[in-house]
Amino acid sequence: MPVSEFDLIRRYFATATPARDDVLLGIGDDCALLAPPPGRVLAVTTDTLVAGRHFLADADPCALGHKSLAVNLSDLAAMGAEPAWVTLALTLPSADTGWLEAFVRGFAALAGAQGVQLVGGDTTRGPLSITIQVHGFVAPQAALRRGGARAGDRLFVSGSVGGAALALRLMQRRQAVPDALRQRLNRPQPRVALGRLLAGRASAAIDVSDGLVADLRHVCEASGLGAHIELARLPLLPEVAAVAAAGDWSAPLAGGDDYELLFTLAPQRAAELVAACADAGEPIQEIGYMADEPGVRLIYPDGRISEDVPDGFDHFKS
Amino acid sequence: MPVSEFDLIRRYFATATPARDDVLLGIGDDCALLAPPPGRVLAVTTDTLVAGRHFLADADPCALGHKSLAVNLSDLAAMGAEPAWVTLALTLPSADTGWLEAFVRGFAALAGAQGVQLVGGDTTRGPLSITIQVHGFVAPQAALRRGGARAGDRLFVSGSVGGAALALRLMQRRQAVPDALRQRLNRPQPRVALGRLLAGRASAAIDVSDGLVADLRHVCEASGLGAHIELARLPLLPEVAAVAAAGDWSAPLAGGDDYELLFTLAPQRAAELVAACADAGEPIQEIGYMADEPGVRLIYPDGRISEDVPDGFDHFKS
Repeated sequence: MPVSEFDLIRRYFATATPARDDVLLGIGDDCALLAPPPGRVLAVTTDTLVAGRHFLADADPCALGHKSLAVNLSDLAAMGAEPAWVTLALTLPSADTGWLEAFVRGFAALAGAQGVQLVGGDTTRGPLSITIQVHGFVAPQAALRRGGARAGDRLFVSGSVGGAALALRLMQRRQAVPDALRQRLNRPQPRVALGRLLAGRASAAIDVSDGLVADLRHVCEASGLGAHIELARLPLLPEVAAVAAAGDWSAPLAGGDDYELLFTLAPQRAAELVAACADAGEPIQEIGYMADEPGVRLIYPDGRISEDVPDGFDHFKS
Repeated sequence: MPVSEFDLIRRYFATATPARDDVLLGIGDDCALLAPPPGRVLAVTTDTLVAGRHFLADADPCALGHKSLAVNLSDLAAMGAEPAWVTLALTLPSADTGWLEAFVRGFAALAGAQGVQLVGGDTTRGPLSITIQVHGFVAPQAALRRGGARAGDRLFVSGSVGGAALALRLMQRRQAVPDALRQRLNRPQPRVALGRLLAGRASAAIDVSDGLVADLRHVCEASGLGAHIELARLPLLPEVAAVAAAGDWSAPLAGGDDYELLFTLAPQRAAELVAACADAGEPIQEIGYMADEPGVRLIYPDGRISEDVPDGFDHFKS
C-alpha cells in the first residue's frame, strides 16, 4: 500500500467532519477521549457493510459513504437518540485515492448535516468492507425500545416502504431505475429528527432494515404481542404502488433497506404525535395496530387476511 | 446461512461476558444503552483484523477470539483507561458453529478476566474479518497521550519485545516455534493493569503494535522530540536474545504484535513508578531516553549509533 494507514486516515478523514466540544481527543492517539453529557445515557450501535453482500463492489463510493453512515444513524433514530460520534473501520483492497475521496465526501456530508464527528477508526487492506459505529445520547427513560408496545397501540411507519427493494430488483434485472427509487436504495435518509420527536412518546420503535414484516416481528416478539397491517394504508411511492396493485406486495412487505421508522403509539397519544409530526414536516402514516394474538396478520385491500409474507424477494441481507 | 444473524449473536454471545450494572440495555435492540460514570471521560478505540493480513485464515479460533479483543484492550491500556464495554462486528464465510464456539470461548475468557461486557455487534457473511471496538473510562487529566513526553524523560517498555515477530518468522519458515514465543504471537496479554497504574503518572504512552521503533516514532512526533534506545537494555526472551546476539535486531526493533506498553517518565517520577510496578508485579524495563534532537537513535551494544532500523522483517501489517 503506497500510503500508510496513518496517512490515509489523517489525509482524508481527520478534518472532514464537524469538531465537537465534547471530543477531548480525536483521531491520532491510541484512543479517542469523549465527554458524554450528564443525565443522559449513551446509545451505541454498529453495522458492517460487505461488498457483494450489502452493496455491489462497483457501487458509487460517494453514495456508499453516505449509506454506510446512514444505516447506523438509522439505528440511533430508532432509539430516539441524538447522534454525536462515529468511528469508521474501513477495509480496502488498495489505497485508491479517488475512491477514498468520494467515499469521504458522501460520509462527511451526512456527518456534517447531523453534527456527528469522526473520532477514530482503522484502515486495513483486504476485501472491501465497512464497519461503522455511532454513539448518541438519550435520556434513559425516553429511549425507544422494541419491547414497549401494548395491545391496542396504533402502528405507524415513516416515509414510504418498498422503494429501495424495487430499485434493487430493477437494477438486478438491468431495467431502468427511476431516480426517486434509486435514491431510496443509495441515499437513505435516517429519520433522526423523527426519532428524537418520538423519544419519550412512542411505546416502541425499530428501523425498517430487514423488511417491514420482519422488523415488525421483532417488535411483536420483544413486546409479547402480535400485529395487524392494513396493506391499503401502506405509504408507497407510485412505482411501488403500481407493482402492489398488480398483486405483488413483496417489495413493501419483505424488501429491506428502507430505513424508515416503524413505531407504536398508545391510542391516547396518537393525535398529539400526529399533529407534532405534521408541524415538524415528518411524514408518518398509520398502518395498523398491535394485538394480543401472536403473529403478524396482513389485511389485503380485498379484505383477505393472511399470515404469509410474500417471499422470493431478493434484497441485501444483513 | 442456516441460522440468522440474530440467532448467531444471541446463541453464542449474549450471555458470554459479564453483566455490568452500567449496561441498561445490551444485545437485542437497535442500540445498546450505556451509562458512563460521572467525572470520567470515555476512551474509545477500534481495530480490524482481516484473515490473511493480520492472521492466517486457519488460525486457532479460540486464540483469535482472545487476540482480537486483546489488541483493542491494549489501546485502552495505552491510554490508562479501565475497560468496560465492547462491540463485535464479525464477518464470516459461513456459520461454522464449531469455529464460533471456539472464538467466543477465547473472547469471553479475556472479557471476563477484564470485566468487559459485550453490548452489541453485527454478524455478516463475507470474507473472514473481525472489527472490535472497546470503551473504557479514564479521568480526563490522567489519560496517557502520545504527545506529553519531554526531553530528558526516561523511556520504558513493559514485558519483552520481539517474541511475537520471531514466532511469526519461525512459523513462516515452517520451523518449530517454542511455546513461549507462540504465546507471544497468539495470546498477547494487554497491559491493562499497568496502564491504569501509569495513568496520571507517565508523561506519554503507546502500545507496541507496529514495532518498537515505529511506535516510538509516533511518541516522538506527537511530542516534538527524538529518542535514544540502548539495545543492550531491551528486555528479550532467550530465543530473541540469541538472534539479536547474532546481529539481527529486526525482531525486537521492527517486529510488531508485542502489545507491550512503551512509555516515558519524568526523571523525578521514575523511581516511584519503578517501585510501584515492582510492588504490583508489572515487569518494566528502562531502555533509553527522550532527546530534543528529532529521530530515533539506536545505541548498539558495541557502542555504534545508528538511525537505520533493521528492515526486511515480515510481520502482520495494520
